Amino acid sequence: MQTSILDTLTFDPGEIILYPGEPSPKDQLYRVREGLVRLQSVDDEGNALTLRFVRPGEYFGEEVISGAERTYFAEAVTETKIDALAPGQLSAQEMHELVQGLVRALSQTYQTIQRISGQRLKNRIAATLLELSRTPVAFMEKNGRIGVRATHDEIASAVGSVRETVTKVIGELTREGYIRSGYGKLVLENPSGLERLSKEAA
Amino acid sequence: MQTSILDTLTFDPGEIILYPGEPSPKDQLYRVREGLVRLQSVDDEGNALTLRFVRPGEYFGEEVISGAERTYFAEAVTETKIDALAPGQLSAQEMHELVQGLVRALSQTYQTIQRISGQRLKNRIAATLLELSRTPVAFMEKNGRIGVRATHDEIASAVGSVRETVTKVIGELTREGYIRSGYGKLVLENPSGLERLSKEAA
Repeated sequence: MQTSILDTLTFDPGEIILYPGEPSPKDQLYRVREGLVRLQSVDDEGNALTLRFVRPGEYFGEEVISGAERTYFAEAVTETKIDALAPGQLSAQEMHELVQGLVRALSQTYQTIQRISGQRLKNRIAATLLELSRTPVAFMEKNGRIGVRATHDEIASAVGSVRETVTKVIGELTREGYIRSGYGKLVLENPSGLERLSKEAA
Repeated sequence: MQTSILDTLTFDPGEIILYPGEPSPKDQLYRVREGLVRLQSVDDEGNALTLRFVRPGEYFGEEVISGAERTYFAEAVTETKIDALAPGQLSAQEMHELVQGLVRALSQTYQTIQRISGQRLKNRIAATLLELSRTPVAFMEKNGRIGVRATHDEIASAVGSVRETVTKVIGELTREGYIRSGYGKLVLENPSGLERLSKEAA
């Protein structure tokens, strides 16, 4: 079978896979095989902002195709395996998957723009918790409840805010019974309530 | 020569090309031939938010490929000609152009997220004026200065704000000599100053 996989690489949680800057000749196109990758920009004051999560089967590092400057870090969230691909040697099937992946990524970033611009922080946090519950940072408790492993810093980056404010809103969501909060994890106690919150406009 | 163009359509300024909702079986993939298209979402209170401008040679309506729900309107900004394409019948060359276009669109939306989240309104307006000056709404004055035809409402949509606030900041930019303001148009008096402003973080 024709394959364009040049290499399969493994990264530990928190390891940086790609740095901001011009794509270099040795850069490849990357596809997540297992785990989760966060594309995150960091401003001059050190505030992090998540641009997109990349899940198994999805592509990143697509700037290698256009040659445009990369404005973000790609970071492994969990232990992550990625395939490095030669962008010029994709099979017809891979080309088709890449287009599908780019279309989905574009839809996701549209939603992020809409949320950051139009929603209150509480609704954005609800939407982010639901999004994370469909990634490899999710786990199931014995009672069947779904939880996500994420720090308040990571949630702040995903919603475009800072930790202090996120901690306050998470306290509010906890008191209102939407979630339960533990060390580095949050359990979704009322998923349908969170779903409703995530759809509310400002 | 093989072609996947099904039809070429013309739209007047302000005409809606696509509405939000599920892509229907009769939906096609669209490519701008001449003019400018704005992808814009409108919230329950009628506030508009520009997700992306689509310039000649660029594609939109890409949800027809993934089947995902469209969350925006596509609107002609100027008189606009678009090609309707059969997404399943793209030539290898068109497929390559589509991938390039999607990659560029994704980079643009990353920048929009970074701006909306991290920049002050004044910097976002400077960045938007420069972006518009590289589209068909730009014109050149006799003295060689570049201007853009855009209302305060349109700029508000592009920066994720409201008209009243935008009018205030445009007054400020005018007093400081960055721009000159006329009926439905803005002239870039100090492009390099605007360039500096557009790169400033919050």
